[in-house]
Amino acid sequence: MSSQEDGHSIPERKETVAPTPQNTPLNAAPLGREGYSRPTVAAIGEDEAGESSAAANLPVGALQQLMQGRLAGLVGKSSGYIESLPEEVKQRVAALKALQSDHNKIESEFQKEILELEKKFALRYEPIYERRKMLIAGEQEPSPEELIKGEEIDKEDGFQFEGQPEPEKKELGDVKGIPQFWLTALQNHPGIADVISDRDTEALERLTDIRLAYLPQPGSEDKQAGFQLTFHFGENDFFSNSALTKNYYYQDEVGYTGDFVYDRAEGCQINWKGEDGEKDLTKRIEVKKQRNKNTNRTRVVKKVVPADSFFNFFNPPKPPHARTEEEEDDEDELEELDERLEIDFSLGEELKERVIPRAVDYFTGKALEFTNMEDDDDFESEDEDEDEDDDDEDAPSAPQQADGGECKNQ
Amino acid sequence: MSSQEDGHSIPERKETVAPTPQNTPLNAAPLGREGYSRPTVAAIGEDEAGESSAAANLPVGALQQLMQGRLAGLVGKSSGYIESLPEEVKQRVAALKALQSDHNKIESEFQKEILELEKKFALRYEPIYERRKMLIAGEQEPSPEELIKGEEIDKEDGFQFEGQPEPEKKELGDVKGIPQFWLTALQNHPGIADVISDRDTEALERLTDIRLAYLPQPGSEDKQAGFQLTFHFGENDFFSNSALTKNYYYQDEVGYTGDFVYDRAEGCQINWKGEDGEKDLTKRIEVKKQRNKNTNRTRVVKKVVPADSFFNFFNPPKPPHARTEEEEDDEDELEELDERLEIDFSLGEELKERVIPRAVDYFTGKALEFTNMEDDDDFESEDEDEDEDDDDEDAPSAPQQADGGECKNQ
Repeated sequence: MSSQEDGHSIPERKETVAPTPQNTPLNAAPLGREGYSRPTVAAIGEDEAGESSAAANLPVGALQQLMQGRLAGLVGKSSGYIESLPEEVKQRVAALKALQSDHNKIESEFQKEILELEKKFALRYEPIYERRKMLIAGEQEPSPEELIKGEEIDKEDGFQFEGQPEPEKKELGDVKGIPQFWLTALQNHPGIADVISDRDTEALERLTDIRLAYLPQPGSEDKQAGFQLTFHFGENDFFSNSALTKNYYYQDEVGYTGDFVYDRAEGCQINWKGEDGEKDLTKRIEVKKQRNKNTNRTRVVKKVVPADSFFNFFNPPKPPHARTEEEEDDEDELEELDERLEIDFSLGEELKERVIPRAVDYFTGKALEFTNMEDDDDFESEDEDEDEDDDDEDAPSAPQQADGGECKNQ
Repeated sequence: MSSQEDGHSIPERKETVAPTPQNTPLNAAPLGREGYSRPTVAAIGEDEAGESSAAANLPVGALQQLMQGRLAGLVGKSSGYIESLPEEVKQRVAALKALQSDHNKIESEFQKEILELEKKFALRYEPIYERRKMLIAGEQEPSPEELIKGEEIDKEDGFQFEGQPEPEKKELGDVKGIPQFWLTALQNHPGIADVISDRDTEALERLTDIRLAYLPQPGSEDKQAGFQLTFHFGENDFFSNSALTKNYYYQDEVGYTGDFVYDRAEGCQINWKGEDGEKDLTKRIEVKKQRNKNTNRTRVVKKVVPADSFFNFFNPPKPPHARTEEEEDDEDELEELDERLEIDFSLGEELKERVIPRAVDYFTGKALEFTNMEDDDDFESEDEDEDEDDDDEDAPSAPQQADGGECKNQ
């Protein structure tokens, strides 16, 4: 194996060895990997909400013990085990907790070094992303080297365009770049496809690039760490912005195990075209017929209501700590908010960790071979969240029909 | 927030601010995080097996297209979309694939740098793990500083031993160290608890430490990268080894997206005590009554059969590429093997990434508050794998009853 040293030898190896069940390391299924300084989401659901529920009158300690008891009863020693230990043993356990806290501080340094490493590598990806943008836009054309290399990869992937009976081609004359590249890539991501409505697709056809930047950006006054996703758009009928941004911020304080915790997300103002928001994809007009009981005449009532749309991504939910007192929610609303926040963070995470780094694999569908479909459970509850408009023009489009659940059953 | 700079300020903050739903960043639920240079598993299931099934007569390219079509039909553009593109667009897509391959090479360097970072930090954790071992064994006692710090953490966690009515204490006089520390920690991990039989617990009570080392170890002749888990045992009735090891090796060639791919695992010989393996926890004696049709007399037949046991962990399944021709399996066996390999890799991963770094949190059950139960789907199929002894002395123990599925439904 002369190829062991260079660390990027898969193409070479595949060319010389016929694939058999015995030598084929293809389709390496990610085991929950992907994402390094991957932040966690601060849960705001059941437990904290519980403070204002039935358990409200118990001291915090008791609540915690209830919780621990429930978990311990499920999987381990009975709930009273630790409490029943002699005092000197409890003290040793307390000392282990002190040690654990030292451990977690070191782990936090580790997380920070990984984030720095990520930033360092982001600079190295930059020219690749720039070239990608140019090829997609048709502003640059493939070099002979790229074509040779790309053809080799096509062969490995089993794409043999030449010599095979080909489906009827759309002969569009001179097509510029790669039309609908980003729309197709997004539609091939199960979780993201879920939030793209039929109406969205027309606008997303004009999506020309998605880029990642780390926050704070050099020279910025804002010092909070995080990352920014920028969606570049060509001229379109829906909004006048040439770019839409979404910022994700980490909390200043790291989580218990040293990892970053999401603080909040910030979207941007979309300048919708048309009068009275008629081009606003995040709104729709609900038409209802009302019958007057006395006259028996029906009249048509129009109402502007929120619509399911990918573009809601730019108006993310506010986490509880960022809300004013008037905005405070009750318990049910907190649980729903918790879920919406988690979906919002997951979408950002997927774009940052998967779609941007491997856009062409999402475009071709290859990325799906590597995706552990079970990871996409996060997205399943999306439809249940917003049940107010099940039967309107935002009815599930083709991509939406394929949720994580269906894919899993293959 | 004066605490922003030091990066380990959670304890301080919690002391000064009362927890409310609005400020509580507790229970940060890991979003599929954990694990950095986390390797992937080379799938050996459906796809490769498919080569010898109904799809066997199709060229590889066709198989790939079927696959792609199936996925594309589910979530994105219809299967013919890419094939229908004009030749010049296909060439641009091919160029993007060449770019992607450059990207993945850089990503592979990133993975290697992270592995080096992990090794660097492993040295910093070492004194903490050594001290932990001593406290658990009772060979050292907590320092006053550790006790003060530990008590503070107890308060934050809601453990208030003083001043609360306490469950009856086992007054064992002078208990040494923390009895059953590692057994309890392992039993509190849902996936690991699944593979611990009732019979295992007696042996695991004598588990005194679990440690991680990276491979190759300095000075070793073996150059393959990976990691080693070492389980240290005190004197026990079951085997004479003082330590059991499990090595996980990575493939020399990184996966498509630059990450490490598991190559194989290697266990160790367990020197079971007793005659005829009577203490061998991985075997059990099956007693069957047979009736002689002619004489109508029953006789008792004893047979040594494999048993579910945690200690099977030290006799891991061989991946297909490591097998000799005689050992080759048919398609069904390959699928089952695929699943067994994935469980074996997952167990190693969980021990490396979660249990060893945060053992005390597993001992107390605190780790479960942070665990995304859905991550443990990997382990669910364990019972289905080995259905030959559902009704024997290895019947599900209390921990086994709580599988990932149940926990999810809370």
